[in-house]
Amino acid sequence: MFIRNAWYVAAWGDEIQDGQILARRICNDPLVLFRAGDGLVAALEDRCCHRAAPLRFGRVTEGCLQCGYHGLTFDRHGKCVRIPAQDLIPERACVRSYPTVERDALVWIWMGDANKADESTIPSFPYHNDEANWPHRHQVIHVKANNMLLVDNLMDLTHIGFVHGRTIGGNEEMHARAQTKVTRAESGLSFIRWMLDSEPPTTYRRLYDFEGTVDRWQEFEFVPPSNIIQWSGAMKSGRGATENRNQDNTFSFRIFHGLTPETESSCYYFWSGCNGYEPDDPAATEMLFSELARTFAEDKDIVEGQQERLTERGEQGLVAVASDAARLHMRRIEQRLLAEEAVNNQVRSTT
Amino acid sequence: MFIRNAWYVAAWGDEIQDGQILARRICNDPLVLFRAGDGLVAALEDRCCHRAAPLRFGRVTEGCLQCGYHGLTFDRHGKCVRIPAQDLIPERACVRSYPTVERDALVWIWMGDANKADESTIPSFPYHNDEANWPHRHQVIHVKANNMLLVDNLMDLTHIGFVHGRTIGGNEEMHARAQTKVTRAESGLSFIRWMLDSEPPTTYRRLYDFEGTVDRWQEFEFVPPSNIIQWSGAMKSGRGATENRNQDNTFSFRIFHGLTPETESSCYYFWSGCNGYEPDDPAATEMLFSELARTFAEDKDIVEGQQERLTERGEQGLVAVASDAARLHMRRIEQRLLAEEAVNNQVRSTT
Amino acid sequence: MFIRNAWYVAAWGDEIQDGQILARRICNDPLVLFRAGDGLVAALEDRCCHRAAPLRFGRVTEGCLQCGYHGLTFDRHGKCVRIPAQDLIPERACVRSYPTVERDALVWIWMGDANKADESTIPSFPYHNDEANWPHRHQVIHVKANNMLLVDNLMDLTHIGFVHGRTIGGNEEMHARAQTKVTRAESGLSFIRWMLDSEPPTTYRRLYDFEGTVDRWQEFEFVPPSNIIQWSGAMKSGRGATENRNQDNTFSFRIFHGLTPETESSCYYFWSGCNGYEPDDPAATEMLFSELARTFAEDKDIVEGQQERLTERGEQGLVAVASDAARLHMRRIEQRLLAEEAVNNQVRSTT
Repeated sequence: MFIRNAWYVAAWGDEIQDGQILARRICNDPLVLFRAGDGLVAALEDRCCHRAAPLRFGRVTEGCLQCGYHGLTFDRHGKCVRIPAQDLIPERACVRSYPTVERDALVWIWMGDANKADESTIPSFPYHNDEANWPHRHQVIHVKANNMLLVDNLMDLTHIGFVHGRTIGGNEEMHARAQTKVTRAESGLSFIRWMLDSEPPTTYRRLYDFEGTVDRWQEFEFVPPSNIIQWSGAMKSGRGATENRNQDNTFSFRIFHGLTPETESSCYYFWSGCNGYEPDDPAATEMLFSELARTFAEDKDIVEGQQERLTERGEQGLVAVASDAARLHMRRIEQRLLAEEAVNNQVRSTT
Repeated sequence: MFIRNAWYVAAWGDEIQDGQILARRICNDPLVLFRAGDGLVAALEDRCCHRAAPLRFGRVTEGCLQCGYHGLTFDRHGKCVRIPAQDLIPERACVRSYPTVERDALVWIWMGDANKADESTIPSFPYHNDEANWPHRHQVIHVKANNMLLVDNLMDLTHIGFVHGRTIGGNEEMHARAQTKVTRAESGLSFIRWMLDSEPPTTYRRLYDFEGTVDRWQEFEFVPPSNIIQWSGAMKSGRGATENRNQDNTFSFRIFHGLTPETESSCYYFWSGCNGYEPDDPAATEMLFSELARTFAEDKDIVEGQQERLTERGEQGLVAVASDAARLHMRRIEQRLLAEEAVNNQVRSTT
Repeated sequence: MFIRNAWYVAAWGDEIQDGQILARRICNDPLVLFRAGDGLVAALEDRCCHRAAPLRFGRVTEGCLQCGYHGLTFDRHGKCVRIPAQDLIPERACVRSYPTVERDALVWIWMGDANKADESTIPSFPYHNDEANWPHRHQVIHVKANNMLLVDNLMDLTHIGFVHGRTIGGNEEMHARAQTKVTRAESGLSFIRWMLDSEPPTTYRRLYDFEGTVDRWQEFEFVPPSNIIQWSGAMKSGRGATENRNQDNTFSFRIFHGLTPETESSCYYFWSGCNGYEPDDPAATEMLFSELARTFAEDKDIVEGQQERLTERGEQGLVAVASDAARLHMRRIEQRLLAEEAVNNQVRSTT
């Protein structure tokens, strides 16, 4: 079951080149993404309405997508505009199209009722456009787990001490006992964790020249259905970090996390690393990216193992612990959104 | 669901060498094929009646097949003729056998009621035996799609312009608008398409030395359940091709297509290319074969993609177009044959 | 369906090194095995009770197992003894543990009701500890077949002539007609086969310097649920082998076979080869092992093929033969044990 009336990241903008077709499966719908004549991204069902051939075998022609089997051609709205062997085009000849918006280097897609697609609810991440102050690199990785298991992962950072001992972890107990303040909203949540006067972890030391202990923070914002905006960093202890994090000589980076469901048990993990500490040094941006990539690979392994167990035995016998607080609030928001959508669908189908 | 009271191609004759065992799955029945003592091909269920071991692990001995596990030995009719540790052989000790006929380089198999196996209904393709005038090469490829999707493919040749643009295709619109005459029979159909005064496509030009435009034809005969006999060619425009295609200096080749179901979603594609234009030149026959092999690989890709979509969503929402005419007639014949077989099976099970 | 109130081999003792975690699936339960503080092997469910992460990603610490996701820590009994972010540990925070016993180089596990785990019913195989007289090498192979198909295999040795023609087989008819004496007990069975005055097979000749014909024996004991103890050998004919097999200049070896179900259609095959003929020569022990490994690979192939057929069509139409006698007795014991367990479970669930 997926929340469908929602914006998901479908692709990085630079994944969709002019004239090319990108195939993805989102919320279990097979799709193709391409740039129509105006450069805007179109998203169509990856299944021709003639004989069900995947449209990804086709080609982009005059801003439309031509099926590679018998040549039916569809515009950005999924309307068939050409059938090679005949002049009359039946009304029914069409494929499903999906609203898309390209913003902040990301292509967003709306998987549900197109009438409800409100662009103003797309989370903003202007750092992707701010090459001068927050140069970034990004990628997408495929994870064989339900996307919400990765949201879970990011809502309970006590895992850092255990999963990321060789990268951003370090002292386990420090992570477990980090002071965390959760701010709950009806439509999302955010939290900030402080590790004051602490040793910088391995990854931080590889990226930045620290002296002595640091005041380290992790600030996370969860935006439903499954996007997370992160700001993390550290500065020398005693400089009043908790009052003001925008000081010079501060190690700080931002991450965008977009967790988009492919199927019930697999997802795409879109993420970026934005360098806020040495923005003029491309090598620093590159190094931040490769260090973060290592930590995401660590998460991928354990979350895929978790998915195997859940697929086989479900949630039976599981016990929540104190550090699940933010995660449980997030899950309640999800449940409410799913329930609302189920009610709406029922109303629609009975009227 | 398969039409079982029908002849399918089980193998090329030269795939079954003396003393060897060829394992195939046809209509979802696992089989072994081997040459019994008289050189005739036998087809048995690939499952020993003792402990269900696959007979393909066995060996051919004295014209019989000996199971490789405990040595039970079966004759060409599936009757057990030896049990190593005992003298008495129970009547029930037998495996299913299937009627086979070797003809025109092909081994045909009857998957249904053996009493109905009428050899006279096997399609004839004498060109496989006519090395002087129609030398050929053949192969079998495995396709992860229902066999009827490949019959569909051959019944709607407008696909040639799109799928085979780099081989036998060329002008898409020309293929879509080619004059096609379909001849419907109760037990099959044939059609011929003419592209008069047209440019020869890439593949044709690689195979033959054309000057100027050609009159090009494609003649197809569908023989249920899933065999197709093709004669294609081209000659210089203006020489009366539509009246007489058996003239000198004509580029012409024949193809046998045998589409045999392995499972509901996979099949064997047996095909040959017979060289009717330079029969004395083995290199020409070889080159025809390799050019055709490229076009079949193009079909395989798109048809496998089509199968994925149909497996997932079925035929819902699909729209037929004008070029589906022959295909739809073919599908009606199939439906009638399936329905007849279902009635027969019901009658048999109630009497 | 598995017999669960039974001892199965879970591992070779030397597979579980201090501080390491070995993951196995037994009777379809995912498990981890590790050495607790006292060196004794502990077996826990491979699923953390917090978020279902596999415990195999964790680490052994102070004789306990710490989950690699959020750090919950479990003792050898599956009791949670630490939750990083909190002081109170709920009673329900635990994972299933399984009784284990390490004996004769093997780690045994009890998969059912722990109250019924009686160590005295573990089969004894002291040769694994007798390096002076029976030096051995061992391994475990994974077989994609129900474990009972391999027990079947060992209960009907007429297969040797057919499956192992190039190793321990040789004359097929001799194997089929070997004099076999089966001794049935309520809780197991044993049999001995004699091939008197026979040619030693290929494998035997590679391992030992025979002159002339031999009196050869194979003695097997089946211990439910799925363990088999074998003593095989041969000595020069005419020396009274049937009266006394413990003579000098006798080629003799012992094999322990432990067939442990992984799933309904896969298993672990634990086996050893114990050299009783040249105990002082490590090269002879090594060579015995590699010859036996070849025969087990031959069994694996055919039994995996058999499993495929049984998965697809079950046992329908199968016919027992004379050589199935021991096998059928073994299967009746299994059925009785399964039925008893089903009754016990029913009684337990209604009281």
